[in-house]
Amino acid sequence: MAKPSALDRLVQALERLPGVGVKSAQRMAFHLLQRDHAAATELSQALAHAVASLQHCSLCHTFTEQVVCATCSDPQRLRHQLCVVETPADQAALERTGVYRGLYFVLLGKLNPIEGVGPRDIGLDALLQRLSGQADWPEVQEVILATNFTAEGEATAHVIHQLLAPRGVRVTRLSRGVPIGSELEYVDLGTIAHAFTDRR
Amino acid sequence: MAKPSALDRLVQALERLPGVGVKSAQRMAFHLLQRDHAAATELSQALAHAVASLQHCSLCHTFTEQVVCATCSDPQRLRHQLCVVETPADQAALERTGVYRGLYFVLLGKLNPIEGVGPRDIGLDALLQRLSGQADWPEVQEVILATNFTAEGEATAHVIHQLLAPRGVRVTRLSRGVPIGSELEYVDLGTIAHAFTDRR
Repeated sequence: MAKPSALDRLVQALERLPGVGVKSAQRMAFHLLQRDHAAATELSQALAHAVASLQHCSLCHTFTEQVVCATCSDPQRLRHQLCVVETPADQAALERTGVYRGLYFVLLGKLNPIEGVGPRDIGLDALLQRLSGQADWPEVQEVILATNFTAEGEATAHVIHQLLAPRGVRVTRLSRGVPIGSELEYVDLGTIAHAFTDRR
Repeated sequence: MAKPSALDRLVQALERLPGVGVKSAQRMAFHLLQRDHAAATELSQALAHAVASLQHCSLCHTFTEQVVCATCSDPQRLRHQLCVVETPADQAALERTGVYRGLYFVLLGKLNPIEGVGPRDIGLDALLQRLSGQADWPEVQEVILATNFTAEGEATAHVIHQLLAPRGVRVTRLSRGVPIGSELEYVDLGTIAHAFTDRR
């Protein structure tokens, strides 16, 4: 049979999800077809709807169904702080802490030269344009770098810092240190070294 | 916002996949929307197509787009042997070994009283009907039980054995034993004990 069956096609489509191999894909396809047809239909429609309706917020680049996302258009948000995060999930985590009331810029990625992800791919040109005062964030006084503390996240933060430093805007980074509730004995040495260097 | 956004809806739909939590679902949604729109569209269509076109083979109960699946309608398959498996993936694994040329019956599940999965849910009534000679497998001489060697799989095999034993059909089970290539030192004791008892 040249044409794959509907089942094979579904398994192959599920395999394209990140972190899903052929065994997981078979298990998922089986679950959806045998136990949860409603979930299969809902996932099919949610995917089609998301692909058709989501676009990038013209200000912060996150996914939204409007031109400007709910956060950027919220008059309650402080306009002088701009927090740079990698993904909407990172933004959501920060929001759950309740400590931040400013605006966001969502990179939707991180610099990764090996995979060909450059500054333009994560919207750094748009970020610079915003901050150069042509556009809607004229009053940004502080850019808070909240990229992940991985090698790529640190490199991304470093590049953004280098780009923004000459423009007179204050650039800060989330502090590195020992997580709340942890015992020093079990914390990795790099973290302890950073916490020691950055002591306050 | 009472109505979830297209992004939230997609994340929630992905969370309904087995083994996918909220973090994985967010990562999948992000990957599909930012990196692989084609995969999102393909998965949406593959799901819709599978739900619309797949049905149960009228003979062996596996998923198929026809009334009778390709295996059951293959004139090359031997009709006197019937191998009972839990899922299409198990059937595919057996097919890849190349040792079996008979027919299959696919339970699409296993007995699990705690989750309310009874004999009827895994098609045992249909299996019995087939074997009682009314239908298309009048010449089955051996039923090979190839359910998994888990607690539920063993219980399922036991129940099928009990049901078939009075009908004069030969019922066999895949042998338990030490996997090829393993050293006894690292094999679990239950397996060694079974391999010892079933020695030949």
